[in-house]
Amino acid sequence: MGGKAKTDPVVPGRVRAAPENFLSADDIAAVSSGRRDVLRRGFAAALGLGGAVAASTIPAQARADDPDIVDLPPWSTSLGLPVAATPYGMPSRYERNLVRRQSPGLTQVGAASVAFTPLQGSFGIITPSGLHFERHHQGWMDIDPKRHRFMINGSLPGMVARPMVFTIDDLMRLPSVSRMHFLECGANTGMEWGNVAVPTVQYTHGMVSCSEFTGVELRLLLDICGADLSRGTFVLAEGADGSSMTRTIPMDLVRSGEVLVAYGQNGEMLRPENGYPLRLVVPGVQGVSWVKWLRRIELGDRPWGAKDESIHYVDLMPDGQHRQYTSIQEVKSVITTPSGGQALVGQGFHAISGLAWSGRGAVRRVDVSVDGGRNWREATLQQPVLPKCLTRFVLPWSWTGERAILQARATDETGHVQPTYRQLRAVRGTRSIYHNNAIQSWLVDPSGEVSNVQTA
Amino acid sequence: MGGKAKTDPVVPGRVRAAPENFLSADDIAAVSSGRRDVLRRGFAAALGLGGAVAASTIPAQARADDPDIVDLPPWSTSLGLPVAATPYGMPSRYERNLVRRQSPGLTQVGAASVAFTPLQGSFGIITPSGLHFERHHQGWMDIDPKRHRFMINGSLPGMVARPMVFTIDDLMRLPSVSRMHFLECGANTGMEWGNVAVPTVQYTHGMVSCSEFTGVELRLLLDICGADLSRGTFVLAEGADGSSMTRTIPMDLVRSGEVLVAYGQNGEMLRPENGYPLRLVVPGVQGVSWVKWLRRIELGDRPWGAKDESIHYVDLMPDGQHRQYTSIQEVKSVITTPSGGQALVGQGFHAISGLAWSGRGAVRRVDVSVDGGRNWREATLQQPVLPKCLTRFVLPWSWTGERAILQARATDETGHVQPTYRQLRAVRGTRSIYHNNAIQSWLVDPSGEVSNVQTA
Repeated sequence: MGGKAKTDPVVPGRVRAAPENFLSADDIAAVSSGRRDVLRRGFAAALGLGGAVAASTIPAQARADDPDIVDLPPWSTSLGLPVAATPYGMPSRYERNLVRRQSPGLTQVGAASVAFTPLQGSFGIITPSGLHFERHHQGWMDIDPKRHRFMINGSLPGMVARPMVFTIDDLMRLPSVSRMHFLECGANTGMEWGNVAVPTVQYTHGMVSCSEFTGVELRLLLDICGADLSRGTFVLAEGADGSSMTRTIPMDLVRSGEVLVAYGQNGEMLRPENGYPLRLVVPGVQGVSWVKWLRRIELGDRPWGAKDESIHYVDLMPDGQHRQYTSIQEVKSVITTPSGGQALVGQGFHAISGLAWSGRGAVRRVDVSVDGGRNWREATLQQPVLPKCLTRFVLPWSWTGERAILQARATDETGHVQPTYRQLRAVRGTRSIYHNNAIQSWLVDPSGEVSNVQTA
Repeated sequence: MGGKAKTDPVVPGRVRAAPENFLSADDIAAVSSGRRDVLRRGFAAALGLGGAVAASTIPAQARADDPDIVDLPPWSTSLGLPVAATPYGMPSRYERNLVRRQSPGLTQVGAASVAFTPLQGSFGIITPSGLHFERHHQGWMDIDPKRHRFMINGSLPGMVARPMVFTIDDLMRLPSVSRMHFLECGANTGMEWGNVAVPTVQYTHGMVSCSEFTGVELRLLLDICGADLSRGTFVLAEGADGSSMTRTIPMDLVRSGEVLVAYGQNGEMLRPENGYPLRLVVPGVQGVSWVKWLRRIELGDRPWGAKDESIHYVDLMPDGQHRQYTSIQEVKSVITTPSGGQALVGQGFHAISGLAWSGRGAVRRVDVSVDGGRNWREATLQQPVLPKCLTRFVLPWSWTGERAILQARATDETGHVQPTYRQLRAVRGTRSIYHNNAIQSWLVDPSGEVSNVQTA
């Protein structure tokens, strides 16, 4: 739905309702104020809700004289557009507001910046490739796949018996695998370390996306090249972008078969801004290691300590030391609807929906609180629940018009539980940028306005 | 990859290599003719291939002096484009050939026609929404969601206690479910009934696509409206397009919870040409019943016999009678790579990959033959394998340069096995248009060219 900027603050000192809001003032006005008690026992039973929300309401119009159902609109009485009018289709013009955006609060240095995924309008677990977040270190480019090459070599003589250079066509004739995985920037939710509550979930959590990736297992390519895995304990991945992004990947991840040299994303070739024609897929690991425009894998026997693993993507701990190579994205979740900048229209029934993920495996459960963490209810996980993949959770909720603080807390299959800010800061301090997986809080005001707050 | 039209016939009487080919002459020329025997025992073991392909070859360049890896290309030595340069991203300009297309062999009547999904370039199971096939009866339109209404009523008094009209916002606050399902037009592969072998998999099978759909269970909405399911045994779904597409849906499908009133597709709102802002999702059932631009559900006690279930979408049987309401899409599969119009470049290793699906549940197994059905090998199914959803299968294959006929044969969890054309015609005759799920054959010529053939 469309939306327009609102500037009046709900919570003093906070920016509210940015232009990318899912619900605009127009949307709100368009909803009838008439309500009916329609939740009967049958409905509650079908949902497995028990008596908890049996008194809830759903605002639904039931006017037989609603002009928009009685009078045929123009599209019911005319000839539409022909097929293939858009050979490659695009979203409706009424959805043009739901796009990737740069945070107004972030400095852009040349072409090195971030564009966030609009999670507030997301459904399910797949992120449309056109909305996948972007984070570049030297900008992006549309590489000619016929000229792109991918090389495998070793750091030391004999470490790779047959160093090779592959074309994209060479790779595409090899056995492929397709797997759904989330991809999260290590700096996602980074602003919240300093309690700089950015207004919407697009900016708090919009550096996570999820796709079905297709490619060749890196271990297969190493095997083809005669790599000596008893000597090679790490690989270096190098990109073809101007920054020559280089990252060290531990061999254990490669050996498991999880690491892919990927050319496909969501059923088609990768998008240029996401690495076309080749990127590394390192499930569960922070996005910077999923090297885009991948041109080289080098086998070695120690971490490389490259620029982006020495200066950036390190965690400044309370004692002043930097923690390095903390690459696994720990268990995390966020409520996407309702979320900051949105508005509940009327009391009664509202579905709570969000996303959960863990770099250590599958999500086991998600609990939701509407009172800032005092009481929790277990949400329903939508299928499929896949390892190192986004999982969609939903929970029915009946809003009584009171102030509410919505939270989600995920637990993964290894037993890790998403921490509160108090728990996270006890270990990590407050001076980090990266790897914030704390529980997010959304304040619902009695007016229905939703905003970003931090609770201990 | 790009491609250009080739007109010289491989198989007399057949059109070959249409413009949408995945591999073009340029692609072929770009691949090095140098080959090495690189498949070692380790590689074969990793694939679980045993000795069968141990002698195979992968053409891979291994030249240390390959100029495209030694000399830095322009994109490695310059600043790229900034983030959000495309707020809603698009495929690479090098992929512009991979789009929905109308078959040159099909007549277009006004805005009623078909645009096919380019399965020859597909990976995994998700179809990008921009490539989802189109089939309209009166064209498509971009409906204003604020003006769209959805009504539920009954055919007879009292059948629905509280007829209701919902806005999109009303529906979006209800509990949602997200599920991945294939969507296949009943006429998919229809040309092949008459042995009119169209050249590519885009035209033989490109009326199947697969998405993650999000919406509200129809049974929940019926319950909210107080529908009497003891009297209502069918529902009528009606679209808001100019043709007022109307289809009868049996109540058993609704009762199971599978039928959704959906607004989301692949993580965002439906695309206009696929029903924005609302469509019915009827898993396993032919696409015409997934009514787009859904405006009304009527509860009734008998099938309606609407135009598109009386004149169209019926099966003309050998005895001259029409079979009606045959809506389940039976178990089916097709090899997408290699497929008609593509070309194998060089002998040796080539991965066979394709899609399988069944309207009755999950795919249990897919067997692949390279000798026209005399011998079969079981393919590997990629995860996730979901009910009434596309399943991607892959099988390693080493081509020795001989003539080969590639086939895939799917079996679903109910035990149904995809038939040969001989088996299908023994029951259905040859004068049908709809519901062809026979085994597809692709002929590989010694030159490497792949074309569409029919075998008994």
